[in-house]
Amino acid sequence: MKIEIITIGDEILIGQIVDTNAAWMGRELTQCGFKIAAITTVGDQSEEIIRALDAGFERADILLLTGGVGPTKDDITKHTLCQYFHTALTFSDEVLQHIESIFLKRNIQLNQLTRNQAYVPVNSTVIQNREGTAPILWFEKGQKILVSMPGVPFEMKTAMTDDIIPRLQQQFLAKDYLRRSYLVSGITESALAMRLAEYENRLPAGFSLAYLPSYGYIRLRLSAWGEERKEEIRQQGRKLRLILGDLFVAKSEKSLERLLGERLRKKGLTVSTAESCTGGYIAHRITTVPGASDYFEGSIVSYDNHIKEELLEVDQKTIETSGVVSQAVVEQMTLSVAKKLKTDCSIAVSGIMGPDGGTREKPVGTVWIATLCGNEILSQVYHVGNSREENIERTASLAILQLIKMLTHKQING
Amino acid sequence: MKIEIITIGDEILIGQIVDTNAAWMGRELTQCGFKIAAITTVGDQSEEIIRALDAGFERADILLLTGGVGPTKDDITKHTLCQYFHTALTFSDEVLQHIESIFLKRNIQLNQLTRNQAYVPVNSTVIQNREGTAPILWFEKGQKILVSMPGVPFEMKTAMTDDIIPRLQQQFLAKDYLRRSYLVSGITESALAMRLAEYENRLPAGFSLAYLPSYGYIRLRLSAWGEERKEEIRQQGRKLRLILGDLFVAKSEKSLERLLGERLRKKGLTVSTAESCTGGYIAHRITTVPGASDYFEGSIVSYDNHIKEELLEVDQKTIETSGVVSQAVVEQMTLSVAKKLKTDCSIAVSGIMGPDGGTREKPVGTVWIATLCGNEILSQVYHVGNSREENIERTASLAILQLIKMLTHKQING
Repeated sequence: MKIEIITIGDEILIGQIVDTNAAWMGRELTQCGFKIAAITTVGDQSEEIIRALDAGFERADILLLTGGVGPTKDDITKHTLCQYFHTALTFSDEVLQHIESIFLKRNIQLNQLTRNQAYVPVNSTVIQNREGTAPILWFEKGQKILVSMPGVPFEMKTAMTDDIIPRLQQQFLAKDYLRRSYLVSGITESALAMRLAEYENRLPAGFSLAYLPSYGYIRLRLSAWGEERKEEIRQQGRKLRLILGDLFVAKSEKSLERLLGERLRKKGLTVSTAESCTGGYIAHRITTVPGASDYFEGSIVSYDNHIKEELLEVDQKTIETSGVVSQAVVEQMTLSVAKKLKTDCSIAVSGIMGPDGGTREKPVGTVWIATLCGNEILSQVYHVGNSREENIERTASLAILQLIKMLTHKQING
Repeated sequence: MKIEIITIGDEILIGQIVDTNAAWMGRELTQCGFKIAAITTVGDQSEEIIRALDAGFERADILLLTGGVGPTKDDITKHTLCQYFHTALTFSDEVLQHIESIFLKRNIQLNQLTRNQAYVPVNSTVIQNREGTAPILWFEKGQKILVSMPGVPFEMKTAMTDDIIPRLQQQFLAKDYLRRSYLVSGITESALAMRLAEYENRLPAGFSLAYLPSYGYIRLRLSAWGEERKEEIRQQGRKLRLILGDLFVAKSEKSLERLLGERLRKKGLTVSTAESCTGGYIAHRITTVPGASDYFEGSIVSYDNHIKEELLEVDQKTIETSGVVSQAVVEQMTLSVAKKLKTDCSIAVSGIMGPDGGTREKPVGTVWIATLCGNEILSQVYHVGNSREENIERTASLAILQLIKMLTHKQING
């Protein structure tokens, strides 16, 4: 049973917003055993939408649409769907009541444009939007299914989780998709591929191994279809881990920040960060995890040097002699933040993210990262690249990874 | 001249990574006057790629492909393109030399898999990848163009900026695309649409007005094609601003953090943040802007209450009586961080991002935001929603917006 995700909206085509909905849907559906055939984004024009529906039904049995259903003029999906399914709109009192209840709760007055959202296609099944006003529409035509949802992320997510995925599972009972993910670090993608070439060639038919490279690490995903291969995939996974040896960091699909959270929680440790060039991004990544307050205490973002000196008590002389991007400075930062914020572990970074600020000895992309666990400090220099945004992203990943590795390989004293 | 962006990679379909490349390309190309017909993502299978190319060339003249060209086994784009354009691979010494120079610079040994990247299709124009090893391939077939690029963001961005966009511009001399963007705040999308209904109906033919709602604000984009309409769009823009009145924040396409940076720089002011629930995300947003060190000094992320008390000197009694999510606490935080970090302005937030931590009086989504400029403080309570990640995003936007508005409307004293 193949699914295509279709995102509707000029704002995505022109790059005004990034389509994070599709990634979320892809992840959730894959985990439930559905296969994603493609993701398509088209603008708010009727003929473009119809063309995408035609192309979509050629490669998939189920089309999941998001976007194009807001109250304003540039949203025309509903009318296009009526045309596509040869039906007309009818007014739904039930949907109106739902909309009214939402406006009442938010204490805003209902206007005509929002009232229009209560018009729904005659031959569709209407699913109430638990988080917003635009109803979710479910169409069936022979063996094909089309579901139209709002593009607002949390409205879409609630609808998918509470209504659409359960219905799809009931209707199609997806064949089991088995997979195992391995987080690998300390090797380039091509060197890893060569190391695994023989293993890959010997994989049983129907098994596949995918390389998903990220900043500072690579995820390997071993997968196969069918409940009956459970034991086989376990064996293949064990074989893979043996070949990986020291490169193996964790068997997990989780994000680095979740992995870090798990390790800290398991050992009952707390963490803080002292950030210069990442400007708070490492703290942000750590706190995206629900319940992070159990182990994360806080951060000092010392973007300007005077804050490094005053709040983090970094020695002015050290900055003068070693430079602000140096081993000595990040080590002082990591020690100081752990002491000030009273945490067992800490992360400190200082680097040059660009586009300006590079020198001959320390070009843009030079980053020092120190991590502390108990009374032990690990500090390392990295060269992350040339683009500011990616440098920040990459530095945060490397810093979190450095602490994960430290927590994995050592016992904490002190 | 229409362009379709095609992203290749299983890792995007299964939601392992979010496709930020497409958004970046959409934005850059739109700004140069090209029109994006669609964005499609397909997996690493030859038949899926070919189907996407066929569908793409039906709606666009130019296909820009990213991804599917790394050294490992799951990347098969190059062979598929040979098949599609009825050509074969040949070894390029020039590309090999380039790859060798990159490996030398990075001090890694070249292996066979990477060497294979020097095989390129006979009838394509090869553009050297300035940032990595996979060459960029440019195919032409009659009036149609296809360009294949790596999926690594900064490699793709450099290639687009330095090579591909200039070539496309030279070849097609895109017709001028005129547009003006207005940042609007303090109204719902539907209420704004009603307010602008008459204006929209009277817009001259060929003009369009798009609503691009974000967290806490809406962007209006007025657009038209053709150099000759320059005066007309200016007039329509003035009319729109008059109707918007107080809702108007800025005429800009820039991100909130860039806008804030501009306002601060213009007035010669500095800023710091004191963050509880956003965990450093506001500081991060501010520091994604190149040159932010000119006005951003640092941040204290006081995730745990003991840090609010110790580092931000928030009165323990205030926390006990008003609660940590309260006007009194954020006002103390904003004052204290500005004083400690010696800045003219500051932002402080405290709220409940969820999924846990809500109470009857203060449900998940309750946030207090205080902003300070000189000797004036503005504090406001917001209710942001139910989903943790979006609550953090939305809170950061609202906080930055609150300071932008404060800087817009007032003179700074003290």
